[in-house]
Amino acid sequence: MRIGELSRETGVAVPTIKFYVREGLLPAGRLTSPNQASYDDGHVRRLRLIRGLIDVGGLSVATVREVLTAVDAPGGSVHKVLGAAHDAITPVPTGRPEGLPEARRTVAELLRRRGWRAEADHPAAEAMAVALAAFQDLGQGAFVEVLDDYAEACERVADADLAYVGRHADVEELVESVVVGTVLGDAVLTALRRLAHVDRSARRYEQHGGGPVAGGGAGAGVTEGGADPS
Amino acid sequence: MRIGELSRETGVAVPTIKFYVREGLLPAGRLTSPNQASYDDGHVRRLRLIRGLIDVGGLSVATVREVLTAVDAPGGSVHKVLGAAHDAITPVPTGRPEGLPEARRTVAELLRRRGWRAEADHPAAEAMAVALAAFQDLGQGAFVEVLDDYAEACERVADADLAYVGRHADVEELVESVVVGTVLGDAVLTALRRLAHVDRSARRYEQHGGGPVAGGGAGAGVTEGGADPS
Repeated sequence: MRIGELSRETGVAVPTIKFYVREGLLPAGRLTSPNQASYDDGHVRRLRLIRGLIDVGGLSVATVREVLTAVDAPGGSVHKVLGAAHDAITPVPTGRPEGLPEARRTVAELLRRRGWRAEADHPAAEAMAVALAAFQDLGQGAFVEVLDDYAEACERVADADLAYVGRHADVEELVESVVVGTVLGDAVLTALRRLAHVDRSARRYEQHGGGPVAGGGAGAGVTEGGADPS
Repeated sequence: MRIGELSRETGVAVPTIKFYVREGLLPAGRLTSPNQASYDDGHVRRLRLIRGLIDVGGLSVATVREVLTAVDAPGGSVHKVLGAAHDAITPVPTGRPEGLPEARRTVAELLRRRGWRAEADHPAAEAMAVALAAFQDLGQGAFVEVLDDYAEACERVADADLAYVGRHADVEELVESVVVGTVLGDAVLTALRRLAHVDRSARRYEQHGGGPVAGGGAGAGVTEGGADPS
């Protein structure tokens, strides 16, 4: 197909397609004459992947390039592609909170307690330690007590993710499912966490007959109507 | 305390503190002479909250301002602050995938099936529908089959979050715990999801004695050594 048809098929404007080719995200079309190129279904598929990562995953063009480089690397394993995709989308924390060494110990203990086969110096472990140290700095150190609940929830999610990835028979499909599942899966998970908050908050609210929306315990000091002085 | 002491106490540079005051993130100090201001523990606390949201939460100055406006609004409920904090940090999907109407129905059905008291037109539900439609566009429509696993995991997380928020007796602490827990909680959750992937992937890898890292089923076509032609 010509570039106009590729554009109609994917809903991506021609100048944008040309931009992706120049930026190395999309392979160039096959030249059929000095200034005419031909595109195939592989281009349609890759273009949809690019748009999904940018529009829904919120990735930058540079990050998409990193992810696709990992996808296209010869001999790439699911493990490696999964790692590259997640590294690319995990924001590197810029802060150096005071309690970082202690937070790193907390993460290492959690990994040991759960029996997870993940290194304590993994980038995600470091990102988590920075977040925990920030909780501590903000006087929210007790948050560590909910970590096992979070970990159990993530075991369930990871089991579902791996089972989902494992069902793909086609190699390219499998690799794409890892990338898409990693990037868009985060979007689905945080959206669902928010909806679950709404539900749990509504349940507490109803139970208390117009009282505090959340924090039905000792902390029920903030109400719909105004700050409760108690 | 003077601005120099506030800077030492929080590790935030003096020009940055002045910038936050100009931008309306931090209340100005109390003037003790025409060009001398005094700061208190409230400033230390607020400054730590600002740094946590920016450095670890990855929020922009404009987004931090939105969140703090919700925190400081008189009569703000936990429910409202939670909503404002999450709205501020939820990236608005810019894409309009083709299968959006069907994806919206999938989300509405999920909410009904789980009995969640959340509206199907909630912004988080819309963000989720856009992500699901993108999965569909990318040929990964089967992902909807893992949604109940994700939902169950999020129920567990939300229960832990609400119980954590509810333990704060002090109103300001409670509101801060909602903001911090919403923003940094996402960072912890996605980092833990990644670590759980590493663990689950490693377990499958070990089980297969050097074989495929993940996707031990029909999809085990990508190995450490190179693409498996089977």
